[in-house]
Parts: sequence; structure tokens; C-alpha cells
Amino acid sequence: MGAIKTRLFTPGPVEIPPRILRALSQVPPHHRTDQFRDVMRRVSGELAWLHGTAGEVFLLAASGTGAMEAAVVNLMAPGERALVVDGGKFGQRWGAILAAFGIAREVLAVEWGRAVDPAEVEHRLASDPSLTTLFVTHSETSTGVLHDVRALAGITKRLGRRIVVDGVTSVGVHPLPQDEWGLDVVVCGSQKGLMLPPGIATVSLAPWAAAAIEGERLPRFYFDLRRARKSAPLGETAWTAPVSLVLALEESLAMIREEGLDAVHARHAKVAHAVRAGALASGYALFAQVPSHAVTALTPPAGVEAPAVVKRLRDVHGMVVAGGQDQLKGRILRVGHMGHYDRADAMAVVAALEECALALGGRGPGSPGFAGASAGAVGAARAAWDAA
Amino acid sequence: MGAIKTRLFTPGPVEIPPRILRALSQVPPHHRTDQFRDVMRRVSGELAWLHGTAGEVFLLAASGTGAMEAAVVNLMAPGERALVVDGGKFGQRWGAILAAFGIAREVLAVEWGRAVDPAEVEHRLASDPSLTTLFVTHSETSTGVLHDVRALAGITKRLGRRIVVDGVTSVGVHPLPQDEWGLDVVVCGSQKGLMLPPGIATVSLAPWAAAAIEGERLPRFYFDLRRARKSAPLGETAWTAPVSLVLALEESLAMIREEGLDAVHARHAKVAHAVRAGALASGYALFAQVPSHAVTALTPPAGVEAPAVVKRLRDVHGMVVAGGQDQLKGRILRVGHMGHYDRADAMAVVAALEECALALGGRGPGSPGFAGASAGAVGAARAAWDAA
Repeated sequence: MGAIKTRLFTPGPVEIPPRILRALSQVPPHHRTDQFRDVMRRVSGELAWLHGTAGEVFLLAASGTGAMEAAVVNLMAPGERALVVDGGKFGQRWGAILAAFGIAREVLAVEWGRAVDPAEVEHRLASDPSLTTLFVTHSETSTGVLHDVRALAGITKRLGRRIVVDGVTSVGVHPLPQDEWGLDVVVCGSQKGLMLPPGIATVSLAPWAAAAIEGERLPRFYFDLRRARKSAPLGETAWTAPVSLVLALEESLAMIREEGLDAVHARHAKVAHAVRAGALASGYALFAQVPSHAVTALTPPAGVEAPAVVKRLRDVHGMVVAGGQDQLKGRILRVGHMGHYDRADAMAVVAALEECALALGGRGPGSPGFAGASAGAVGAARAAWDAA
Repeated sequence: MGAIKTRLFTPGPVEIPPRILRALSQVPPHHRTDQFRDVMRRVSGELAWLHGTAGEVFLLAASGTGAMEAAVVNLMAPGERALVVDGGKFGQRWGAILAAFGIAREVLAVEWGRAVDPAEVEHRLASDPSLTTLFVTHSETSTGVLHDVRALAGITKRLGRRIVVDGVTSVGVHPLPQDEWGLDVVVCGSQKGLMLPPGIATVSLAPWAAAAIEGERLPRFYFDLRRARKSAPLGETAWTAPVSLVLALEESLAMIREEGLDAVHARHAKVAHAVRAGALASGYALFAQVPSHAVTALTPPAGVEAPAVVKRLRDVHGMVVAGGQDQLKGRILRVGHMGHYDRADAMAVVAALEECALALGGRGPGSPGFAGASAGAVGAARAAWDAA
């Protein structure tokens, strides 16, 4: 066996394009210079474009969880109550943050792998007017499910409630036009669709929600967005900005701008459809009822253990994917393909998934009783790519 | 006037050595791989060595202010009271964080430019046993003052109180052996003595203070060190680690290890003494009563405005220094020299300071009534270098 290149097919952090690595290795300017203030203003403007908002996008030195906490402590006042959609590890996290800050909440538990039923959310909100804010995950990374936040935003708008969306693995992957859909707050991280290393998180606040962060809220200092708001017009952040990552973010946004946001979304759809079709043709099953284009969660072919696939992908193919978390530990594998992934990447991972199924004793193409495409996984993936 | 190179003499972020820039431009491993877990374990061990502690050093994706907040919310229980030494912008910040989280505090106001009198701290603590914790800044970046935290730790130990030290601009610059001096908590950031871009902050907890973060404390989630404590033995962080910066930190710690910690401190002392002597010989005065080796705060020669020096250093010499903040705005300049600075850097900035004094009409060497060294600024700096 010869040298193997490492390829990340992880649900974040993801592969970093060479252009962005080059940006990271620049000598960064000092953060209190006009040179850097210009970068910050450009980046803020481009982030607002990416989010489809005429509001403000605040940039924090933190991981995505920091942006989630920022949304909670800046929006919620002591005594307010929240509704949380919990259909996976990241939905759960909204509940855990609210709990840590003493906010009473209703939890709408959704079976892992299924998408929330908007009618259920409407029923809960309508029957309890004290639930001021809905917290939900767009692309639930732990299950690979995409929740229909557009429908949910229609409901919160109609009922006069707020909606806060975790867009960490959907921004730059799926359309999520904030103002058009009526999303009060969207939080995001840098190491997913934005193709950066971790270390930047953002909170995007719709124009009509501008006042929502003012007044008495939960205890806040590092994540106090009122401070961020004061600094932003000056091209500054409240606390020292992660300058190297900001330069890299500028490059990432330029790449998205050059390709075109619609084209970026379409490419993610094609990659996701190809990976799903190739996996199905190899005997895997999709775990998610409504799959996200960010990550494909798969249960292995009959007779094959998920951890064995994860291990073989790594050892034989050099491909790093994720296993299941918590209740899904050992049961699924999660193949990430958000960011800098193309047709050849999709075909490569499909070929590897098929090889693992065959090598580990699953029934692959040609084996008795196999229900997949007879043209093999790559043929199925190719057809799905073309059709998507 | 020919091309000018940009040189940062800022009190952080500071110049980043090429070795560290190279580390940043590596393709980083995924954070949930054994490869990265090994890096995390090595980095944690080296951070403990740097801090001189047998305790735990927690690594956060945040700026230094995030680490300050982490110290406050993990140590303080509702109802506890604190004593804050406020002798500048960063001392003030301790008070602001405590206020944001509803902790009652006594503020020991120290005139900006002066160091706190340990006897005063002892008096305040002794006369009010309800003050459980002392919050103090080691090197106060806004004034260039070094506070005697060793003496303060002697007092807190004797009186059975805790001491929390902001070491952001002193770690890697001045000796700050945590366990030997009896410091319960030390917080630090990446963009100072550690020579990295901003984006990593650390909280170092002494072994005898291990239990201090357990139990009911202030509301905490992103900065909850109990979660960090659970993840650390696995080579993981509670939330996604800023992987690129961690690789850079490994390189930074290797550089400090290779040079030797004592040698690093001695070099900083020499650079600082040289800059001070050269500045004095050019007609500037030291603003700090007890100057830090991290940053030299200077009042300009008579007849010269501080902002004019800042501007001329930048425009003619390519040197970026900082002005004064808040009440010191327009009154001082702050020359940073922590991290990757050597003898030639010291001489270059001294020569530039002298040129500014002469060009802007201050009395330089040879001018009537000038009290500085007749050998000129560089001569004075050289003598100070040799003597330090």
C-alpha cells in the first residue's frame, strides 16, 4: 500500500482551500489601523450579503457555541420563556445554554433522524403565549437532518414570536435568506460552509430585531452585542479581533462571491445528491428523513458495523469522516461535504464507501439480493449529479 | 522617500515570527483525530510548564477578555464580593465584568501610571473579610505599569483569600511562576508574549484551586471550565478548538522552550531597559512609576504632541505604536516590545524615537538645556542593554 493523502469529509472543521491557507500565513496588520478597519468593514458588508440581511452581522472570536450563547444572553430577559426544537445534539445545546442561564423552556423533542413538524411548533406556540422565542437548528449536524426553518419563521411571524436559527452548518450550503424568510437571528461558525479553521463565530441580527438586544437581558460581557454594535461602524470589534482569521474570512467571502451564492448552493446540492445515491447503491441507508446538503448520515449495509467503515475509510482511503454521537454512537457514519467540495470529491468518497461495503462483507452491487443500482455506486452517483 | 517596511511595536497584537506564520498556513488536522489530540496534550503540558504550575491550563477560543470572564464566572458564587485593583483600562475591565454578572465589589483606585501599594491591599482585605477574591492586572497595558503580584499573592495567602491575575501582557515577558508565588488563577491571551495572532485565551488554575470551579457559580456555558476539565484528559476542548492557532501555539511554545524561559525574560528586560534609556536620552519621560517590560509608556519631550510622534513613527519610520487610551488619549505613546523583539529592534525604535523628537521640535541631544545623554539615544540604549 503506497502513500495515502488525508482528505477531510468531516462535518466541520472541513478542508481549507489553498487560497485561504495563504491568507492565514500573511503578516496580519494591527487591528487598530485603517488598513484593518477597511478589511473589517468589507467583511461585515459581505457577511450581510451572504446572510441576505439589511441588519447587522457581529463577528466574535469564539466557536459556534459562543455565537449560540451570544444569541441567548442578548435576546432573552430574565423571566422570559423559550421553545426549543430538540432533534439532535445541537438542538439539545440550545436547551442546555438556556438552562445554564436560568431560562425556563419547553422542549419539543423530535426523534433523531426526523425533521420537526411545523404544525407541532405552531400548536405549541399558539397554546402558550408566554413562549416568546423559538430556538431551532437549520442543519442538525448530529443527524444530517434539515429542518424547515422557512416554514417555522412563517409561524413565528404570524404569532408575533421571535425565531433564532443555528445556521452553523447551513450558511453557505443551503439558501437561508434572513430578511426574506423572516429570521430574527442566525448564528454561524467559520469552520463549515465558510471553509476556514475554527475561531470565528457570527451573530446576524435582522433589521427589525435591532432593538431586541437593548435593555435588561441575561448577564453578558464578552458576548454583549451592544458593545459590538458600538464598535462596528468604526471597523472594529469590541474585543481584539482574530485578525488572521478575519483576513482568511475575507478570502472565503471573495471565493463565494466569485462562484456566486446560487452556484455555491447548487454545487452543494449536486455533491449531496451524488453522495446519497452512491451510498444507497452500495447498500447504505440514509439516516435522515429530510437530509441536509452539509452532511450525509448513513447507516451501514446489513452485516457491517459503522465504526468499521469509519476506520477503513481512514486507513485504506485516507478519508476522515465522523461517527455517530451520543445515542447514535456506533450506529451511523457522517460524511461531511460542505465548503470546498466538488464532483471529483463526491465520486472519490462514493467509490470508497462502496469499497468499504464490499470489503467489510456488506452486499454490494452484484451480490445476491442486493437492491442497489447495477451500474455500481459511481454510476448511480454520476446520474444523481446530473439530475440534481 | 523609499519603500518603508511596516514594523509593529504595538502592545499586542505583536509581530508574528515567520516560523509561526508557517505553522498557520499548514493544512490543520481534524480536531477529533489522534493526531490533533496529541498536539493538544503536548500544548497543554507546555503551557503548564510556561506558567510554572502543576495545575490545569484551559485553552479557549476567545480573546483575553474571554479568559477574564471565564475566571469570574467559574470562581465567583452569587453573593460573593471581590476587591479589584483598578489602575488602568484592564484593571477597570475586571470591575466591569464583575458588575455585568452582578458581583458586588470594592474598587481600589490607583492613579494611572502608579503601581498599587501592597499595604493598601492588605488593609482593605484585612478590614473586610467578605472580600473573598482579589482581581489584579500584572502588566497594565494601558499605563505600562507592572504591579507586584508576588507581594499581593503573599497577602492573599496569609489572609486566606484568592488572587486572580491578568497575565495577558506579562506571561512570556516577566517571570510569573504560578505555584511558587501562590497565584490561584492566571489568565493569558495569544497575541502578546506568545507571539500568535489573537484568538486563543487561556485560564491557568493552580492545583490547590482545583475545587474552586466546582459547585454553584455564576451563569456559565461557553466558558464553563468544568466542561473543559472533562475534555482535557482526552486531548480535547469542550467546544471546537481553533486548530490552526493551536498548531501555531505549539510552535510558539517550542521557540520559548528552545531559547529558554529565563533567557526569554532576560531578553525582554534588556529590550525594555534599552528602549527606556534611549527614550529618556531623547527627551521623553517614562509614564509608569514601575515600568513593565512588555510596553514602554512615554510622555513626549516638551513642546511635542504624543499623537504627532505616533503619526511620524508610522509615516516616516513604518513603526506602528499605540497612543494613550481614555484619560491618557493624546497624552502618551505606548511602545510595545513583547514577544519576538531583539537588540536590533530596540536600537531601531530608539533611533526613530530620537529622530521624531528632533524633527518635531523637542530638545534632543546637543540642544540647549537638554538633560539627556550626550552620546545620543542609541548610545544610551546600548549602555542600558549591556547593563541590564
